[in-house]
Amino acid sequence: MARGAVLETKFMKIGMAQINPTVGDFDGNCAQIVAAAKKAAVQGAELTVFSEMCLLGYPARDLLEKPAFLEAQDRAIERLRDELRGTPAVIGIVHRRGQGVGRGLFNSCAMIQDGKIIDVGHKSLLPTYDVFDEDRYFQSGSAPLVTTLQRRAGSRMTLGLSICEDCWNDKDFWAQRRYAFDPMEDLVRRGAEVLLNLSASPYSMEKHASKQSMLSAIAKKYERPLIYVNQVGGNDDLVFDGRSMAFNARGEVIACGPAFEDAVTVVDLRAPPVATELEKGHLAVEEEIRRALVLGTRDYARKCGFKSAVLGLSGGIDSAVVAVIAAEAFGPQNVTGVALPSRFNSPESLSDAKDLAQRLGIQFHEVAIEGPFTEIKNALSQVFAGRNEDVTEENMQARIRGVLLMAMSNKFGHLLLTTGNKSELATGYCTLYGDMCGGLAVISDVYKMMVYRLANHLNAMNPANPPIPQSSITKAPTAELRFNQKDQDSLPPYDMLDAILKEAIEHHVSADEIVKQGYDRAIVMKVLRMIDLNEYKRRQGAPGLKISPKAFGTGRRMPIAHRFREY
Amino acid sequence: MARGAVLETKFMKIGMAQINPTVGDFDGNCAQIVAAAKKAAVQGAELTVFSEMCLLGYPARDLLEKPAFLEAQDRAIERLRDELRGTPAVIGIVHRRGQGVGRGLFNSCAMIQDGKIIDVGHKSLLPTYDVFDEDRYFQSGSAPLVTTLQRRAGSRMTLGLSICEDCWNDKDFWAQRRYAFDPMEDLVRRGAEVLLNLSASPYSMEKHASKQSMLSAIAKKYERPLIYVNQVGGNDDLVFDGRSMAFNARGEVIACGPAFEDAVTVVDLRAPPVATELEKGHLAVEEEIRRALVLGTRDYARKCGFKSAVLGLSGGIDSAVVAVIAAEAFGPQNVTGVALPSRFNSPESLSDAKDLAQRLGIQFHEVAIEGPFTEIKNALSQVFAGRNEDVTEENMQARIRGVLLMAMSNKFGHLLLTTGNKSELATGYCTLYGDMCGGLAVISDVYKMMVYRLANHLNAMNPANPPIPQSSITKAPTAELRFNQKDQDSLPPYDMLDAILKEAIEHHVSADEIVKQGYDRAIVMKVLRMIDLNEYKRRQGAPGLKISPKAFGTGRRMPIAHRFREY
Repeated sequence: MARGAVLETKFMKIGMAQINPTVGDFDGNCAQIVAAAKKAAVQGAELTVFSEMCLLGYPARDLLEKPAFLEAQDRAIERLRDELRGTPAVIGIVHRRGQGVGRGLFNSCAMIQDGKIIDVGHKSLLPTYDVFDEDRYFQSGSAPLVTTLQRRAGSRMTLGLSICEDCWNDKDFWAQRRYAFDPMEDLVRRGAEVLLNLSASPYSMEKHASKQSMLSAIAKKYERPLIYVNQVGGNDDLVFDGRSMAFNARGEVIACGPAFEDAVTVVDLRAPPVATELEKGHLAVEEEIRRALVLGTRDYARKCGFKSAVLGLSGGIDSAVVAVIAAEAFGPQNVTGVALPSRFNSPESLSDAKDLAQRLGIQFHEVAIEGPFTEIKNALSQVFAGRNEDVTEENMQARIRGVLLMAMSNKFGHLLLTTGNKSELATGYCTLYGDMCGGLAVISDVYKMMVYRLANHLNAMNPANPPIPQSSITKAPTAELRFNQKDQDSLPPYDMLDAILKEAIEHHVSADEIVKQGYDRAIVMKVLRMIDLNEYKRRQGAPGLKISPKAFGTGRRMPIAHRFREY
Repeated sequence: MARGAVLETKFMKIGMAQINPTVGDFDGNCAQIVAAAKKAAVQGAELTVFSEMCLLGYPARDLLEKPAFLEAQDRAIERLRDELRGTPAVIGIVHRRGQGVGRGLFNSCAMIQDGKIIDVGHKSLLPTYDVFDEDRYFQSGSAPLVTTLQRRAGSRMTLGLSICEDCWNDKDFWAQRRYAFDPMEDLVRRGAEVLLNLSASPYSMEKHASKQSMLSAIAKKYERPLIYVNQVGGNDDLVFDGRSMAFNARGEVIACGPAFEDAVTVVDLRAPPVATELEKGHLAVEEEIRRALVLGTRDYARKCGFKSAVLGLSGGIDSAVVAVIAAEAFGPQNVTGVALPSRFNSPESLSDAKDLAQRLGIQFHEVAIEGPFTEIKNALSQVFAGRNEDVTEENMQARIRGVLLMAMSNKFGHLLLTTGNKSELATGYCTLYGDMCGGLAVISDVYKMMVYRLANHLNAMNPANPPIPQSSITKAPTAELRFNQKDQDSLPPYDMLDAILKEAIEHHVSADEIVKQGYDRAIVMKVLRMIDLNEYKRRQGAPGLKISPKAFGTGRRMPIAHRFREY
């Protein structure tokens, strides 16, 4: 069929199954797949489409190099062939071609029908940038799969199967990588009546709008319905937002899955357009982030086997926001907040911390650090004889708090949550092995100004009983590691700081160009210097939930020992 | 010229310049390049060959995504064009093609002669496995460069230029990645008289022998002299060992650069074969590792700006070995060892630590942790009321030591060295934020059994004054975090443990297959479980010097939250 030929869309119901797999949990993932396929079939779906690598969980990373892992997957596929009898499905798998384990792998999709694997297609465009390492594991498929669904009525439907990046057909980018063809165009040229896309596309702020318009443009350009199914759930630092979408041949959204929840959504290809969440505009960025953080925290804990959490409460805004997220992710009864006051903490800090715990209904402890602080200084008194106090003693307090919180984590099996924000982590305004202690850094990808917006949003959600004390939001931010310390003694004002950080980190803008945007040269140089010099801290930071296009962690790989200086 | 046609090797002297670049230090790297080229020219070299990316330092990682970084390189190339006038050279650079910064990059080599860039060649085979991420940054060159050197005498020499992996022509591996051609064969087919290979090939145990035989086989197969120049020096976790080699057309080594030192070696292509270090057999694996660790430690410190180091001395073998390495890397006067005894430490531990410090001539402090330990427990007495002591209190001691050592690092600007070995890190027999604290993990890629071999080697090097007390080597290993604790209470015997770990980590061998090798199933399962469950600790570990084919760190990317279980 020639490209662009106008087709009349046939009637067919398709299930979009956005499940929340756990990496390597083949039993659990199989059970989810079978349950979703049955649920869709009950609603009349003739085919259920799942997300990329739904059987393994995405990303499986170097587990893909283990032969035993791949063999376990292959056994799971065998089981699915049987269990999906009567419910045709397209699932995301890894396909092995030829000998030599760990080589010859493809990121693939399998169409399963009537107890058979009808066909297997491979991803053509392998993302190898930011958090993605697909060239590390996979070979690139030379052509995406066009296959035929035998329908109950005896008719057929020709399907064009693509996987995630295959849709992101930025030709300029991919042409440079020697992919002269566009997988979607190729599918249409080869006769696909309906385009499917299995994705594991992690959330980042404001990505959904561009994704929707890109997918809509593809459907419209080729005049084909397009079904996009995205993974949901948190896996380490990545949070997948679901929000599967079906488009008609005019590029209009005709169905969509919920955001940050697993779901089975059945769509009739001839259904009328619906208003998507995006079009209704009711997912403000603060709400998107809130849901991403709650899901990411909940899933990290659940998939690692934690049922409860502990965190330090400073009385400030960062720990307050993390406490609210934790209370929702774990249930308030499973969260313990700990105030760890020193001589430098104001009475208001302690009362704000207590107040927060009460409002949230979480457990609360107060553990003073004066005793340990004095004893640590005593222990070092000979070694430090004749030296003035300096930042050493500030870090010491933060590290004593780390020891105390980790002791509570060890004793009770709580997951310790780190409460530092992205602005702090970027500038090193945080103590390694101190406030950086923890299994998960909940807001490490949230700039300080966005922490404020989140706090206000959390309070606005519940105006009768706002969870965060107003004074935690309004007071000047302080680490309280010496008398009268304020963040703004060491850092530029946060609105300016965040703007500079964003340019430098997310857009790789040079110092000169940031200065040209109107910022003070000395401040820009200071900020860039802080980013560079603190790489060593971030290298040892807890995994943090990614919500921005460029988070610290697996997607940003800077050397520590280098001398490239713009300052 | 047809492949395999026998050529008579012309007379020509070539300089092999294995320099030690610092990533992003364009001024310093340029200065090294110019000095090396001049030194080679004085010795009669008509051409000096450098290592891969010598101008930028390898690996530059995400600095390559910064336009300002690439522009700084381009300015450095301009400078080199002038400064290398009269000393023809082939240097490793990054080449940008077309628009769109961060895209269209090649891992390239430039031939510079008479103030001009004569030619630029691109790497064809981009490693994207283990510690390598080259597909993240680079496009693959479609054909390696054949170019002509205009010689002073008016004659010409046709050179075939390859970069690192281009030589590693394991066709089975690369054919799967759709590279149907072998770059070396291609160079010969297109007329190269001499083959050059610019490398940045990091050290790992016993890699050198296979590298030498592979390169020798290439020279012999194509009957062409082959000049291989490798980077030297430490960059974060990677240590490059130099050991450049020149082969004649019969595959015999005719010159080689030193191991783990920068050097300019000039070779006459008609020179007779020499006995290489390898052939003379005088670099035992323990000595290779010792040199790698000294260089890696020294360079990490130097390139980060540290002049001194501090480390905890337990009286055990791990910290003793690290102290010896540190004393050589920094000079004994710049190293401080600290004993941090508790009620659980034997008097022998303290006396062994003191003894070691005296033998090495490093500074020594003793800081007891009883006071802080008591106070930390007091602070938590209410929260822990009614609970028994457990591993929490063991970790607490390790973390208090971390606080004390980091305080000394902060106060005096010493780099804190972590002393944990690979067996501990693999099994989680270490405390996060405790003994894992530090800027560099010197022996984190050295299994315990190899730590013993290293200790004996270090003592054997100086039989009159062995640096490590014999009792540190012979006593049963213990963490001394409770009374009469021995490592072997929690872990299998180290010889068995290390063998299982190596199978699982370095070869991805499945549980069943390890058991088939003759190990007890329960022990294998326990070890595999420990490896998995402690991924979260390693994720926050200090960068460690890689000396094995598979180190924890940038080359091993396992998810934390997963449920793939073989046990």
